Amino acid sequence: QKRKMENDNLSVVLHAQGDLRLEQRPVPEPGPNEVLLQMHSVGICGSDVHYWQNGRIGDFVLKKPMVLGHEASGRVVKVGSAVTHLKPGDRVAIEPGVPREMDEFFKSGRYNLSPTIFFCATPPDDGNLCRYYKHSANFCYKLPDNVTFEEGALIEPLSVGIHACRRAGVTLGSTVLICGAGPIGLVSLLVAKAMGASQVVISDLSADRLAMAKELGADFSLPVKREDTPENTAKHVASLLGVQPDITIECTGVQSCIQTAIYATRSGGVVVLVGLGPEMVSVPLVNAAVREVDIRGVFRYCNTWPMAIAMLASKNVNVKPLVTHRFPLEQAVQAFETTRQGVGIKVMLKCDKNDQNP
Amino acid sequence: QKRKMENDNLSVVLHAQGDLRLEQRPVPEPGPNEVLLQMHSVGICGSDVHYWQNGRIGDFVLKKPMVLGHEASGRVVKVGSAVTHLKPGDRVAIEPGVPREMDEFFKSGRYNLSPTIFFCATPPDDGNLCRYYKHSANFCYKLPDNVTFEEGALIEPLSVGIHACRRAGVTLGSTVLICGAGPIGLVSLLVAKAMGASQVVISDLSADRLAMAKELGADFSLPVKREDTPENTAKHVASLLGVQPDITIECTGVQSCIQTAIYATRSGGVVVLVGLGPEMVSVPLVNAAVREVDIRGVFRYCNTWPMAIAMLASKNVNVKPLVTHRFPLEQAVQAFETTRQGVGIKVMLKCDKNDQNP
Amino acid sequence: QKRKMENDNLSVVLHAQGDLRLEQRPVPEPGPNEVLLQMHSVGICGSDVHYWQNGRIGDFVLKKPMVLGHEASGRVVKVGSAVTHLKPGDRVAIEPGVPREMDEFFKSGRYNLSPTIFFCATPPDDGNLCRYYKHSANFCYKLPDNVTFEEGALIEPLSVGIHACRRAGVTLGSTVLICGAGPIGLVSLLVAKAMGASQVVISDLSADRLAMAKELGADFSLPVKREDTPENTAKHVASLLGVQPDITIECTGVQSCIQTAIYATRSGGVVVLVGLGPEMVSVPLVNAAVREVDIRGVFRYCNTWPMAIAMLASKNVNVKPLVTHRFPLEQAVQAFETTRQGVGIKVMLKCDKNDQNP
Amino acid sequence: QKRKMENDNLSVVLHAQGDLRLEQRPVPEPGPNEVLLQMHSVGICGSDVHYWQNGRIGDFVLKKPMVLGHEASGRVVKVGSAVTHLKPGDRVAIEPGVPREMDEFFKSGRYNLSPTIFFCATPPDDGNLCRYYKHSANFCYKLPDNVTFEEGALIEPLSVGIHACRRAGVTLGSTVLICGAGPIGLVSLLVAKAMGASQVVISDLSADRLAMAKELGADFSLPVKREDTPENTAKHVASLLGVQPDITIECTGVQSCIQTAIYATRSGGVVVLVGLGPEMVSVPLVNAAVREVDIRGVFRYCNTWPMAIAMLASKNVNVKPLVTHRFPLEQAVQAFETTRQGVGIKVMLKCDKNDQNP
Ligand SMILES: NC(=O)c1ccc[n+]([C@@H]2O[C@H](COP(=O)([O-])OP(=O)(O)OC[C@H]3O[C@@H](n4cnc5c(N)ncnc54)[C@H](O)[C@@H]3O)[C@@H](O)[C@H]2O)c1
Ligand SMILES: NC(=O)c1ccc[n+]([C@@H]2O[C@H](COP(=O)([O-])OP(=O)(O)OC[C@H]3O[C@@H](n4cnc5c(N)ncnc54)[C@H](O)[C@@H]3O)[C@@H](O)[C@H]2O)c1
Ligand SMILES: NC(=O)c1ccc[n+]([C@@H]2O[C@H](COP(=O)([O-])OP(=O)(O)OC[C@H]3O[C@@H](n4cnc5c(N)ncnc54)[C@H](O)[C@@H]3O)[C@@H](O)[C@H]2O)c1
Ligand SMILES: NC(=O)c1ccc[n+]([C@@H]2O[C@H](COP(=O)([O-])OP(=O)(O)OC[C@H]3O[C@@H](n4cnc5c(N)ncnc54)[C@H](O)[C@@H]3O)[C@@H](O)[C@H]2O)c1
Ligand SMILES: [Zn+2]
Ligand SMILES: [Zn+2]
Ligand SMILES: [Zn+2]
Ligand SMILES: [Zn+2]
Repeated sequence: QKRKMENDNLSVVLHAQGDLRLEQRPVPEPGPNEVLLQMHSVGICGSDVHYWQNGRIGDFVLKKPMVLGHEASGRVVKVGSAVTHLKPGDRVAIEPGVPREMDEFFKSGRYNLSPTIFFCATPPDDGNLCRYYKHSANFCYKLPDNVTFEEGALIEPLSVGIHACRRAGVTLGSTVLICGAGPIGLVSLLVAKAMGASQVVISDLSADRLAMAKELGADFSLPVKREDTPENTAKHVASLLGVQPDITIECTGVQSCIQTAIYATRSGGVVVLVGLGPEMVSVPLVNAAVREVDIRGVFRYCNTWPMAIAMLASKNVNVKPLVTHRFPLEQAVQAFETTRQGVGIKVMLKCDKNDQNP
Repeated sequence: QKRKMENDNLSVVLHAQGDLRLEQRPVPEPGPNEVLLQMHSVGICGSDVHYWQNGRIGDFVLKKPMVLGHEASGRVVKVGSAVTHLKPGDRVAIEPGVPREMDEFFKSGRYNLSPTIFFCATPPDDGNLCRYYKHSANFCYKLPDNVTFEEGALIEPLSVGIHACRRAGVTLGSTVLICGAGPIGLVSLLVAKAMGASQVVISDLSADRLAMAKELGADFSLPVKREDTPENTAKHVASLLGVQPDITIECTGVQSCIQTAIYATRSGGVVVLVGLGPEMVSVPLVNAAVREVDIRGVFRYCNTWPMAIAMLASKNVNVKPLVTHRFPLEQAVQAFETTRQGVGIKVMLKCDKNDQNP
Repeated sequence: QKRKMENDNLSVVLHAQGDLRLEQRPVPEPGPNEVLLQMHSVGICGSDVHYWQNGRIGDFVLKKPMVLGHEASGRVVKVGSAVTHLKPGDRVAIEPGVPREMDEFFKSGRYNLSPTIFFCATPPDDGNLCRYYKHSANFCYKLPDNVTFEEGALIEPLSVGIHACRRAGVTLGSTVLICGAGPIGLVSLLVAKAMGASQVVISDLSADRLAMAKELGADFSLPVKREDTPENTAKHVASLLGVQPDITIECTGVQSCIQTAIYATRSGGVVVLVGLGPEMVSVPLVNAAVREVDIRGVFRYCNTWPMAIAMLASKNVNVKPLVTHRFPLEQAVQAFETTRQGVGIKVMLKCDKNDQNP
Repeated sequence: QKRKMENDNLSVVLHAQGDLRLEQRPVPEPGPNEVLLQMHSVGICGSDVHYWQNGRIGDFVLKKPMVLGHEASGRVVKVGSAVTHLKPGDRVAIEPGVPREMDEFFKSGRYNLSPTIFFCATPPDDGNLCRYYKHSANFCYKLPDNVTFEEGALIEPLSVGIHACRRAGVTLGSTVLICGAGPIGLVSLLVAKAMGASQVVISDLSADRLAMAKELGADFSLPVKREDTPENTAKHVASLLGVQPDITIECTGVQSCIQTAIYATRSGGVVVLVGLGPEMVSVPLVNAAVREVDIRGVFRYCNTWPMAIAMLASKNVNVKPLVTHRFPLEQAVQAFETTRQGVGIKVMLKCDKNDQNP
């Protein structure tokens, strides 16, 4: 049994743009501060699909084969010699970004900004869409019994929402506009409500996604069309809420949505940019400046796993409905194709042959 | 009818320590920036009872008869010449503190600290436990149709909880200890949960109050005895939560609870002092200092009504169960006696003869 | 003497684009909360010249004659009935923005964002380039004996620098890039150094302005040309400092400078937009977002006069060298012409015939 | 020569309360992430003397011989295999606290609160009062040529002042009271002024120390006597400043000073506790609470070395006058005796036989 385990490390490897393969890789050996994990559930992210389709995201270019996947959870099967807080059998959620250097960003608590950070499935760093994966033990977080593996895997996208809402300063009674009801817009919605937002409007082109947003707790859904002007959409938002929102969380990356975000937000408010679009965008910056609408970016997250686990354990946030599709690891290509088509919300790959439960 | 209205201004007046009277007062005339209100619901606060029983709170000494009451809502019946945002018929919640001077506290958004602030039922300023009361229009906030008068009145104590949680920095996943399950501890509980606290422990001497706390959403209730040592209570809290709480909100004013608050709170956390006890207390300040546990006071609140109304309108906070007793204004003395005995949680006085609904 | 005083209220009035006149206006009578001031020193701001040259700034359009001037100090000659903190003879600096409504912006300490604020020399509100001017007493601040009238007048532009540095979070050891060495860039420099910035680079097209910046304490001056690319200028800044600056304060409004500001600022840093340029600008927003470089606007200032007076009184900031030209009020047109030509830094108009001292 | 170097590692070792010895210890070998340093200048801290005199500080008890010293700088003589940012010959300042675990405190940028942190000369961790010492390379910071070794050593106490002022929120125009003009009070003074404080009052029992404080830039010195009441001292401070200070930095640990700190500070202000006194203190906590005077502790520092080096390099802070005595390492006992007697301010031990310069 142990033998077999160590021989089967089926992995989802991107060899080049468009060239996604399922292949065996050796089971890695954990270093002193690492743990070896038997992977359980790994969600597919838009960025995984983007690397597959384009071979790059911005300056990150695939130059050699890379394992995909970074929304993951699994079970500890081996611990490095220096690891004390985990033991074989522990169920853990994986934070995919691990700072390599103790630079000023790390020391001051913003390790996500460290330029040399390791990050699963960002070239050249391998991800964890495979059977066995080793990771820094300090970035594996034990899941309580009442949190499922899939919830554990969903902590990764949820963390983007947490970081976005935290940087936005969402608090009791906040009114919030979220542009885009994709997975990231939806987790931002869940988090905003959990942090006390009184009213959340969410916009999207897709009626299906808006329907899901309503189910997840959006107070208002705003169907938009590509040809709508930002000023008009902004007015529409204000008329739904009765006031301009305190905060806008932009989760599309589309230029017109960034413009909408600025026009829509009340003076003294905050626009958080989560969506990543074209390098140069044309925006009404004076409008933001003279109304002191702050524009804050979000790059992944830091220090979110513990609070996410706390929220899931206490049942204050319910991410389960986000999972709309499941595939065994062996059917990874079909799974990727599903995400590419924009069907459903979150597709989960089940990496453990013997346990395909949530 | 109009005649009658203007003649009947039955008011609850404290003449001296122990000397509480129901008497007629003239209906006031609103100034240019004021509104005249027909009072609807006014909650009795511990401080109202304290003035009645002791004739003073700290440096605030009753020197001449004063109308009691400051947790209030009513209906606009007349507006001053300069008032534009309210009109007769509007249902409003009343913020009882109105800054008199445009000093640095006011200009910088902390008007609750202005030393010359007017405050209902703090000597020598009259409160609003009466039929007709005039107030600064800028400190009356229109209630939406789906928020009741009683909810409107409860915004006052709720505001203490909001201000406490805001100063504590309660956020997603916070673990919180609340000392004391009186009205103030309970509103702090409601607000902490609404702001995303994952787990709240609440302590009290009274099993009844703890039962109410559980009903209102406390994750753990901790019955304490006067003879418990602060260190032990702190350990008990940590064992309930599995960790030390990030935040402690002290709502008793009792010295041993302040000590517990310090010992219990995790390093880098916050103790908020809401409870008001003896002037001098003996506390383990070095313990707090070397663990950078910040100690922050709370003096009433500022800028809370709009967010409170937003929360109530969106049904994210439910304060209704706090009201355990109701009396018509004419039975004010019995009502005060009920509060004095510590029976129930919040006693409401119903000031409008024709509408005694919540 | 008194007679004469009340008859001579020579005022600098803009009648229409390009039509600047010196004319007599009645001496105003202060209301209960106002003071009447005998004006002493009033600086000319770029916006005064802009109204003169263009008749408008953005949505603010001159529709009827308006007195110019908003960087001002004077002496109290009469106080309204309700004024207690000032008396005739007091020397005061004038904060030109006075909120008209007690709205949420005002209550929460950000009154500069109040949409209905009164502001000197912003249509349709009259400024104070005249002999006698009345103003809200709460927005007049007594000058200590060791602070001159001109220093008092310079508190207005200095306040823009204070607000900018405060919003930027300048603190001990900050490295700062300032784009533009006009009056606003220079006051930002003074304030950044006073708040503990270790190194400030300042850029401009003009060698003269950079020379002034060096005199005022800039660690590095960076001469730029219109054709320089933002990326190169950003690299140049990093090579001067040895690191990317923590903070960039943009004081030109020019699109290429905003781009430079984003490229130049280190990850996790802040760009403050003070300069006001074209409504739409093309900017590398993804670059800012993924490095979490926050973009914060500045609209005038709030709560700056007391700290500015404290700094001037304690001699920690020296604004005196900013004044390069002085004209008696009668020569206002020549004074405006001087500012229009960009000669020197700050032109002062001396409104008191009997005291033309600094 | 090299031979000799490795043989002579004269070290100042505390064997037991009162038993301070100079003895040879082996020259250590740096691990992969460490550097070996030839020590140059090491300041004596009150805590070093306290361990010598008492064998303990609070819960930290000397149980085996320990090298003293933690205010230090030296020259790199050997680098571990994984070290890239330092090389032999580099002059460095040493941050004595090195987190051992990547716990939540460390990840969120508050590593000083990590309960398992290594700290020089805190039992059982050895300090660096010796000839050769190895340290985590990540906590050694390269000194620019224009910063002396002694300035480098003084970054340690300076960091306490930086952390205190940062936690206090000292900013432009702040008025500050500092209780105690010992080394820690004096560095707090230097930092407060550098961060823009307009006026600093500093109190002490000793006229000599106050004289030094005036030389270092205190605006007011306040001689106090042990029998002065806290209320009176607080009034005295307000009369010196003309207002109550925004901030009080308590640097004595004495109960009456903590009381003074609370009474003295203006509403909405901050008291920072740096001084460490008796475990239990009696304080007017309600006075602080109802005026929202926050009480914040300081435990050492984090993230201060880079900004301290920036300040020293840019000559914005001058710590040199703090060094009043120098002794060669061989005379460590006399040096400790000097500090014990409270003569002068900072005593420096010179560890390099061939270079005893500042
Ligand atoms: N900053 C970060 O760290 C980070 C992390 C994860 C994802 N992202 C980015 O966040 C964005 C959202 O991610 P996702 O996985 O939800 O993507 P997604 O593509 O699934 O969702 C985007 C949604 O935006 C909608 N949309 C498109 N144009 C719109 C418009 N004009 N108005 C309203 N809605 C519109 C789409 O219909 C879609 O539902 C992406 O740009 C992604 O790159 C950023
Ligand atoms: N700071 C402010 O602005 C502000 C505003 C309102 C009320 N307060 C203060 O807040 C406090 C609470 O107000 P309230 O109306 O809820 O009062 P309350 O008296 O109804 O409630 C206090 C509760 O504390 C409990 N208690 C007493 N000793 C205890 C102990 N050792 N451990 C645990 N619980 C204990 C009591 O049983 C009681 O239930 C009072 O001190 C009041 O003065 C302050
Ligand atoms: N946000 C606010 O509240 C506020 C208040 C006052 C002024 N402002 C704005 O601040 C800006 C500066 O005001 P000012 O009075 O100093 O104006 P100014 O015109 O005197 O100074 C601008 C300076 O920028 C320099 N400059 C132009 N192009 C440049 C480039 N490409 N690179 C570097 N420098 C360049 C110019 O040479 C000039 O010295 C203006 O846009 C003004 O409208 C804003
Ligand atoms: N929190 C931390 O991380 C940290 C770090 C270093 C030092 N400390 C503490 O800071 C304090 C100061 O350190 P130091 O090295 O400057 O000590 P020190 O003993 O040299 O200085 C204390 C000064 O306080 C003065 N003083 C005593 N009683 C006073 C009174 N009633 N009023 C005014 N002044 C009075 C003394 O005359 C002395 O000059 C100590 O308690 C030390 O333990 C704390
Ligand atoms: Zn992803
Ligand atoms: Zn009350
Ligand atoms: Zn101006
Ligand atoms: Zn020390």
